[in-house]
Amino acid sequence: MRKLTMADLRRPSAAEAAQSPKLPYVVVLDNIRSMHNVGSLFRTADAFGCLKLLLCGITGTPPHREIQKTALGSEETVSWVHYADTVSAVHDLKQAGYYCLALEQAEGAIMLQDLSLPLGQPVALVLGNEVEGVQQQVVDACDACLEIPQLGHKHSLNVSVAAGVAMWEITKVLMKG
Amino acid sequence: MRKLTMADLRRPSAAEAAQSPKLPYVVVLDNIRSMHNVGSLFRTADAFGCLKLLLCGITGTPPHREIQKTALGSEETVSWVHYADTVSAVHDLKQAGYYCLALEQAEGAIMLQDLSLPLGQPVALVLGNEVEGVQQQVVDACDACLEIPQLGHKHSLNVSVAAGVAMWEITKVLMKG
Repeated sequence: MRKLTMADLRRPSAAEAAQSPKLPYVVVLDNIRSMHNVGSLFRTADAFGCLKLLLCGITGTPPHREIQKTALGSEETVSWVHYADTVSAVHDLKQAGYYCLALEQAEGAIMLQDLSLPLGQPVALVLGNEVEGVQQQVVDACDACLEIPQLGHKHSLNVSVAAGVAMWEITKVLMKG
Repeated sequence: MRKLTMADLRRPSAAEAAQSPKLPYVVVLDNIRSMHNVGSLFRTADAFGCLKLLLCGITGTPPHREIQKTALGSEETVSWVHYADTVSAVHDLKQAGYYCLALEQAEGAIMLQDLSLPLGQPVALVLGNEVEGVQQQVVDACDACLEIPQLGHKHSLNVSVAAGVAMWEITKVLMKG
């Protein structure tokens, strides 16, 4: 099995990627502390066709050397906007017709393997702070919670990893739809 | 939707988690350079019931301060072993009856959404170095390649994120089986 080379992969240029069609979902970062996580989320958003990142509260924004280190250029191909307050971001998204899902262990959460999405509605996935998770008032502003079932001792994944897993499932559902 | 507290989550203790039943798959790290990625992989392995990590070549091993920073204690609940050479690790796994999948963009790779696994056979997922990917000779020693379809400019996810996405799919397939 020959590994594919860069030439085989035919990467679009940054300009082409910025213009290329995206999937109808956005990701909201509720006070993400680590610039490494922010950069990693740009990279995942690029890979999984995310429309836009909403960087809220203390979440760092480009240009920033620490974000660039893990984003590796994807901070130039993925659209983003900054909100001072995450609840306002979710309210704006709901006004715009988005179905808002908080990635959080909560009562009545939808288990990720059971995910289905309302037909024809764009989706927003809300990610929480590394320690506090998604703020309760942000959870309350969302339509539902989405939970990744976890078997182990820690009951918590790194936020970049959890986001990648959830974005992958959302991508799959949207590509089928 | 009330967020669950630590008490609600009823985390097993580290000792209980180390003894708890796991899923029949292991993850092989082929020369992972970053201790942060190694730590993050311990945490994901804990969450997704992975049997063991095989840390190969230059991949760092616990105890290590930088691994601990991202593993957050999971390096004490997840079994691991070190191999000087990744090809030897894959050979041993194949001898032990494992179905070995390299996570790599390669000719004839299985797309992640199409993943099915041979019934009753344990699984090994091989992850590659941050820059070089899985070595060609390691790919050649595996049964198949597994590829995460990517839409964007970079055509590459962070290895911890890619691993999380692939481990989630493997977990789902194994839990169904």
